[in-house]
Amino acid sequence: MNSVNAAIHDPLLERMNFLNEITHRYPNAISFGPGRPSERSFDVQRSLDFVGRYVESVAKEGKETSTEVWARIGQYGPTAGIIQDAVARYLTNDERIEVSPASIVITTGAQEAMTLLLIALFQPNDVLLVSDPSYIGMRGMAQLLRIPVELVPSSREGLTAEAVRAAIARVRASGRRPRALYDIPDFHNPLGTQMPVQTRQALLKLAEAEDFLILEDNPYGAFSFDGARLPTLKALDTSARVVYIGTFSKSIFPGTRMGFLVADQAQGQLASDLSKVKSYVTVNTSPLLQALVGGLLLENNFSLRARTAPMVALYRANRDAMVASLEGHVRRLGLEGQVLWNRPAGGFFLRLEIPAPFNEREMNLCASEYGVICCPMSFFSDAPSAGTQVRLSFSYVTAQEIDEGVGRLCRFFKERLLPGSAP
Amino acid sequence: MNSVNAAIHDPLLERMNFLNEITHRYPNAISFGPGRPSERSFDVQRSLDFVGRYVESVAKEGKETSTEVWARIGQYGPTAGIIQDAVARYLTNDERIEVSPASIVITTGAQEAMTLLLIALFQPNDVLLVSDPSYIGMRGMAQLLRIPVELVPSSREGLTAEAVRAAIARVRASGRRPRALYDIPDFHNPLGTQMPVQTRQALLKLAEAEDFLILEDNPYGAFSFDGARLPTLKALDTSARVVYIGTFSKSIFPGTRMGFLVADQAQGQLASDLSKVKSYVTVNTSPLLQALVGGLLLENNFSLRARTAPMVALYRANRDAMVASLEGHVRRLGLEGQVLWNRPAGGFFLRLEIPAPFNEREMNLCASEYGVICCPMSFFSDAPSAGTQVRLSFSYVTAQEIDEGVGRLCRFFKERLLPGSAP
Repeated sequence: MNSVNAAIHDPLLERMNFLNEITHRYPNAISFGPGRPSERSFDVQRSLDFVGRYVESVAKEGKETSTEVWARIGQYGPTAGIIQDAVARYLTNDERIEVSPASIVITTGAQEAMTLLLIALFQPNDVLLVSDPSYIGMRGMAQLLRIPVELVPSSREGLTAEAVRAAIARVRASGRRPRALYDIPDFHNPLGTQMPVQTRQALLKLAEAEDFLILEDNPYGAFSFDGARLPTLKALDTSARVVYIGTFSKSIFPGTRMGFLVADQAQGQLASDLSKVKSYVTVNTSPLLQALVGGLLLENNFSLRARTAPMVALYRANRDAMVASLEGHVRRLGLEGQVLWNRPAGGFFLRLEIPAPFNEREMNLCASEYGVICCPMSFFSDAPSAGTQVRLSFSYVTAQEIDEGVGRLCRFFKERLLPGSAP
Repeated sequence: MNSVNAAIHDPLLERMNFLNEITHRYPNAISFGPGRPSERSFDVQRSLDFVGRYVESVAKEGKETSTEVWARIGQYGPTAGIIQDAVARYLTNDERIEVSPASIVITTGAQEAMTLLLIALFQPNDVLLVSDPSYIGMRGMAQLLRIPVELVPSSREGLTAEAVRAAIARVRASGRRPRALYDIPDFHNPLGTQMPVQTRQALLKLAEAEDFLILEDNPYGAFSFDGARLPTLKALDTSARVVYIGTFSKSIFPGTRMGFLVADQAQGQLASDLSKVKSYVTVNTSPLLQALVGGLLLENNFSLRARTAPMVALYRANRDAMVASLEGHVRRLGLEGQVLWNRPAGGFFLRLEIPAPFNEREMNLCASEYGVICCPMSFFSDAPSAGTQVRLSFSYVTAQEIDEGVGRLCRFFKERLLPGSAP
C-alpha cells in the first residue's frame, strides 16, 4: 500500500463517522444524534409513481413518445440536469428566488454542490471562510482538497458581520485572497440559530466591498416554526454575490440524493463552469431520480409548502417537547443555571451548554450507560468553547422519546458530569 | 465574478462537452459519437419493480418489516453502500474476482470512483500515469485537482509494459513518485484494443517492483464478442496492486449512476479511507437506486451474463456491420490503403485512421454537410498522431444506420479530406 491524503485521518473529519458508528453500535439508544428527517414524512414506495407522472407529462408535450422518455431517463443525460425548469419554478414559489433555469445545476445532493464549488472557485492563493462551528461537509472537503480554511467564530446567535470582517482582514494580512464565505443562515447546523435580516444585508454589502462570494447552504429554511420566514441571502442578492446550495433531502427524502446549485454569476457562466466540473465528478445526476423529483414537483404545482407543512408541525411539536422536557428535568434535578439551551425558530437542532466537558468519551458513556445518543459540539469545531456544548437533533424522534431521552441525558449530566450540583 | 480553476477551460477538457453539444445540434445526423449503450436493452419502467423485489427479500430475512426497509432506502445510508454483498457475488460469478464485501465501495457511477481515488491516493509529490489516448474522465479530474499527469503513449494495440516502464523512469528522474497507472485493459475507450495476458502479467510485476497501483477501469469487459474473456488484472492480482473500477451503466443502464470500487489494499483499510472521502463528495450513493440494482442482481442470481447476452449479440453484429461497411465503401470509393481500421474483439469502439487531419473543424463539417457524427481521436489526446484518427462508436446505432453512416463518412473522406485519391 502506501500513504493516503492525510486529511482523511484528521480527527475532525473522522468524527463525522463516529456518529454513524455509535448509532449502529447502540441501536436501542434514543438518538438525538444524526440530523435526519423524520421517516413519518416518507412515501418512498408511492414516490416511484412520480417517475411515470414525469414521463407522461413530458410525452404530452408531443416531442417524444413515452417510450422515448423512459429510455432517455435511463440513458446518460445533460450534465447540468433535466429538471432545472421545475426547480426554478419551485424557487420562485417557495423561496422568492427568481433565477433562470440556466443558472441552476442539479447535483447529487448538496454535498456534491459543495465539492463542485471548491474545485471550481479556488485558486492556489485563495482561502475559504467558514463559520465555526458549522456543518463539517464544507470544511472537510476543503481540507481534503488542501484548500486553506479561515474559521469565522460564531457567537451564540450565529455569524456576525464583524466576525467576518475581522476574518477577511486576517486573510488579507497573510497575503491571500478571501474567495468565499460558507454559512447556513437559516436554522444553522449545529447551532439552531437564524441570521437576522440586518446581518444578511451587512454580509451582502461586505461581500460586494471585499469582493468575495457567499455560499449559502439552505437545507433547513423550509422548516420555520414561527410563521413568516426571513428572505434568503440569495433572495436579497442584487449583485450576484451569493451562490445558493439547495437540497430535496429534507423536503422530499434523502434517498433521492437530489440537490442543486444556483449560480447566476457572470451571466450564467459560473453555472456552466460548475457543470463542466460536475462532468468529471459524477458525469450527471441520475435522470431517473430527477424524473422522480420532477414528477413530484409537477404534482405539487412546483411548491413543497403543502408537503412540508406536516413535517414543520411535527418538528415544531418536537422542539416544544424538547424545550419543555429540558425545563422540567433541569428543574427537578436542580440543574437550573447550569444547563442552558436555545429555542430554535426552525430546523432540526438545538444547542445545549453545560459547565463541564462533553466530548467523544462522554458521548460514548452517555450512549452505553444512559441509552441516549447526542452529538458533542466538538464534532463541528476545534474551538475550546465547543468542548462544553452539545447538539441535540429533535427531527428524528417522537415526543415520548424526547421526554425519556432528555430525562436520561439530564441524569447523566447530574450523576456523571456535574456531581457537585444541588439535590 | 472572478477567475475559476483554469483546468475548466483547458481545451482538452472542454472537448468532452463539444461531443454532447454537436449531438444536440444535429439531432438527425447518424451518430457514431458518444459511447452510449443501446437503449434497446433498457427496461427502465419495469426496472422500478426491482426496488420492491429488494425490499421484500430484505424483509424476508426477518430483521426489518418491509415498511422499515422502504423507509431505510429513502433515508441517508452507510457511506460505503448497502449492496456490497450482492456486488461481491456478482464479481465472483461474472469476473472471477474474489473479494470481501468490505473491500467494496458503491459509488455514484465509475466517475465518482475515479474522483475518490484521485483525492485519496495522491500526495503533493505523486504523479498519475495515464495511457494516452484514454477516456478523458480520469485525466480531466486529475487536472482539475492539479495532480501531475504523466502520459504513457499507447501503441495501435494498446498499452505496453515497455511504455509504462519508460514513463516510470521519466517520473522518477524528475524526483517525483509514480503513484498509480490508469488504463482500460478490456476493449479500450477510445482504441477498441484488448490487452494481451502477457502484458497484464508484466504490468502486475512492474507494479510490484516499482511500487505503484494499477487503477483498472472495466466498463466494457462484459461485452466480449469472440467467446472466452481474458482475466481482468484484478483477477490476476495476487499482491493487492490493482484497484478495480466497475460500473453498471453499460450492463444495466446509465441512469442508475451505479458504479463501485474494489480496494482490498491494506486489509480493506483503503476501501475504508475511500469511503471516508466519499462522505465528503456525495455523502452516500442513493439507497433507492442501490435497491434497484440489488433487486436486479438478486433476480438474476448475481450474474448479469444472461442479461448482457443479447447486448453482446447486438454489439457484435454492429461491429461486423461496421467493418463490412467500411470494407465495402472504402473499396467502392478507391480508398484502399488510405482508410485503415481495427476489428475490436469487444466493447463499443473502433479506431479509424486516415492520411489527413480530422479534428473539431472536420467533425463539424462532417456532421453539418454529411449528416454523420464521429469523434476525433484528438478529443482524447494531444499527441500529434491523434490528429488523423477517429473513434467510431457502434453501440448506439442500428445496422442500417451503420451502413448509411459509414457510406457518408467515406464520401466525406473522399470528397473533402482526400480529394486527390483515385476514383
